[in-house]
Parts: sequence; C-alpha cells; structure tokens
Amino acid sequence: MKFSPLLTELIEALRCLPGVGPKSAQRMAFHLLERNRRGGAVLADALQQALDKVGHCQRCRTYTEQDVCDICASPKRQASGVLCVVESPADIVAVEQSGQFHGRYFVLMGHLSPLDGIGPADIGLDQLQRAFSAGDLKEVILATNPTVEGEATAHYIADMANSCGLHASRIAHGVPVGGELESIDGTTLAHSFAGRKRVE
Amino acid sequence: MKFSPLLTELIEALRCLPGVGPKSAQRMAFHLLERNRRGGAVLADALQQALDKVGHCQRCRTYTEQDVCDICASPKRQASGVLCVVESPADIVAVEQSGQFHGRYFVLMGHLSPLDGIGPADIGLDQLQRAFSAGDLKEVILATNPTVEGEATAHYIADMANSCGLHASRIAHGVPVGGELESIDGTTLAHSFAGRKRVE
Ligand SMILES: [Zn+2]
Ligand SMILES: [Zn+2]
Repeated sequence: MKFSPLLTELIEALRCLPGVGPKSAQRMAFHLLERNRRGGAVLADALQQALDKVGHCQRCRTYTEQDVCDICASPKRQASGVLCVVESPADIVAVEQSGQFHGRYFVLMGHLSPLDGIGPADIGLDQLQRAFSAGDLKEVILATNPTVEGEATAHYIADMANSCGLHASRIAHGVPVGGELESIDGTTLAHSFAGRKRVE
Repeated sequence: MKFSPLLTELIEALRCLPGVGPKSAQRMAFHLLERNRRGGAVLADALQQALDKVGHCQRCRTYTEQDVCDICASPKRQASGVLCVVESPADIVAVEQSGQFHGRYFVLMGHLSPLDGIGPADIGLDQLQRAFSAGDLKEVILATNPTVEGEATAHYIADMANSCGLHASRIAHGVPVGGELESIDGTTLAHSFAGRKRVE
C-alpha cells in the first residue's frame, strides 16, 4: 500500500526540483495539502505561467516574458557601447545592485566546459560574435565567475573580442577566487568593476 | 532591477515550500526553466490536481481523492475489529510495509500540543470517540510517535478507549525514543506490533 494515486504523483513530481529527495518531497506535499493549499495553488499557477511565457531575451539571453528584456529595450543602455558578459541571469541582478554599470549584458546561461560537452555554441557565442561584429560596441566587460571554467570562458571571449578590434576587460579586485558572482555584495562588485583590467 | 515579473512571481511562490529560502527558490526556478520544463509542467499539473481532488478519508482521515480510502473501503479490514491510531498518513505506509497489521487506521494528522494550541478537536478525537462508541471495535493500537507529545496523545486516547470498554495497547519494543515512526524499518515495526502492551 502506498499513498493515493494523485498524492503519489505529486510527491514524484516534486522530486524534479533540485536537491529534493523522496523524504523532502513527501514533507512538501503534506505541507501544501495540510497547511498551505492557498500557497500551493499560487505555486501551481505561477509555475504554469512562467513555463508558458518566460523565455530568453532575443538580444542578451536573460529570462524575460517579452521578446526583448527591459535593459535591452532601453535606448540609453544600448547606446552605451559597453557590453557585460555574465554566466547567469542572477548575475545581472547582482551587477545592477552594485550600481556601477550602465551598459548592456549578454548572458551565457553557463560556461565553457569541454568535459561536460558544453562548447561555444551551447553558451551562445555565435550570437555574441554577431554582437561583436555589429560595430556599436567599444568595450566588453567579462564578468564570468572567478572559477577555472569562468576564467577559461572569459579568455575565450576576450580572444573573440580582440579579433573584432574590441577592448575586453575582466572584472578583478574583490571577487574571491572560487566564489559565485551572484552571492557577492554590491560594494565588492563595485570595486571589481572599477578595478577591471584589459585582457590582451 | 530584479527578474522579470513572472520569474519573480515563480521564485516567490516556490518559497511556500518548507525549507526553501530565496537562494534555493531561485535555483529551483532556473533549473525548471532551463533544464526541466517538462518536469515543471508535470509538477504544475500534479499540484493543481492534488489540490483540487485530494482531501481526507471520511473514516480514517488519511489523504485520498475518494470519499473513503482503499483500506477503509475494504470489508475485511473493517471487520477486523482492530483500529491503529497514527499521527500521519506516512505512518500508515510504514505500518503497511511491516506486513504485521491487517486492521483499520485512524490518522490524527498531528498530536496533542497544548503549547501550540492543538487540542483534542484539532486531531479529530471527537470523530475517534464516535468510532469507539460504534460498537464494532475490540482493540485500539496506539502507534503515535515515541516522542513526549506522541506518548501524551497515546495516553489521552487510551483513556478515551478504556471509558468505552475497549482494550488500548501501545506499540512497544524496537521503537527508539525520540524517533519518528515513518523512518523506522519494517522489521523493527513488526517487533513493535508483536510486543505491544495494554495501556491501563
Ligand atoms: Zn535582454
Ligand atoms: Zn480511510
């Protein structure tokens, strides 16, 4: 004997969430059914809505339910001539909170990882190449994570930028090695941006 | 600048899950959108279905999408004359896996906890009283958790049963003090059932 069919399905379905095993899934299902049906209904709806409507910005690849995200739709941002390359949409939020950057972004949605079979096309570098070739950029700031893969990805993109005659700089001071960009405070990130160095 | 409205709503909504903070919620939302949209759609649907249809069994209070759960609907189980009182629907699954019990259940959906304002009516004891008075029971097995609250609840129910002229027994050997019934293996539970003692 197990739980009823619909409860069993809910427990199974909750396991698609990262870090959720059978016991957590069961605890979540009971919690929603017993103590927070309203929250559960809001979650079911928000999840359905997001899956139906949230896609990637056609220009920077961040998550948005529009064709083009708010930052990419801003003429001032577009006219800045500066592009910041980050690994994740969460990194945009972190950089924006530092208040030190007023240009555009490009989100890789990951980093180069040959061992996992993740190559340039998988992180949108063909699209980034087209942005580099468009002629409206004067600098590319490489704000990938300060990890081995993030550094390797930054160097790869710096080479692409240099080939197009663009300055590429890497954010520098204050980012702890091995850390994750999105968990760093705004002040530290502001220092990182101010102390960026050109990648040759 | 934050995430897009629908993504922000999804991250907020995921926080209704127990043990999920802002960072976990964000990681979950990204994971669903980026790597498992199919799993997310299944989850949204399973959650909606469960919220719409899963309620409590009219007889034993466990979760079911029927009026009466499969165990309560079994004439053999009903005719056994033995009722096992547990705290949670998960405990039924644990007891069933021990293979030692063939009677009916009653699920408290909690335990007495005066400090939290949880009294007899909140754990269905008025309904349990009616079952005791119906005249078709010969024994009540108290399988609440071996915690302070579980023991107090068992004693309270034993008194109710004795007042109705019913034998009440408490599962005993093998259940570690301070543990949770649902995490105990079937063999240990089988010993617990075999070694049960009458509560006077
Ligand atoms: Zn964009
Ligand atoms: Zn039932």
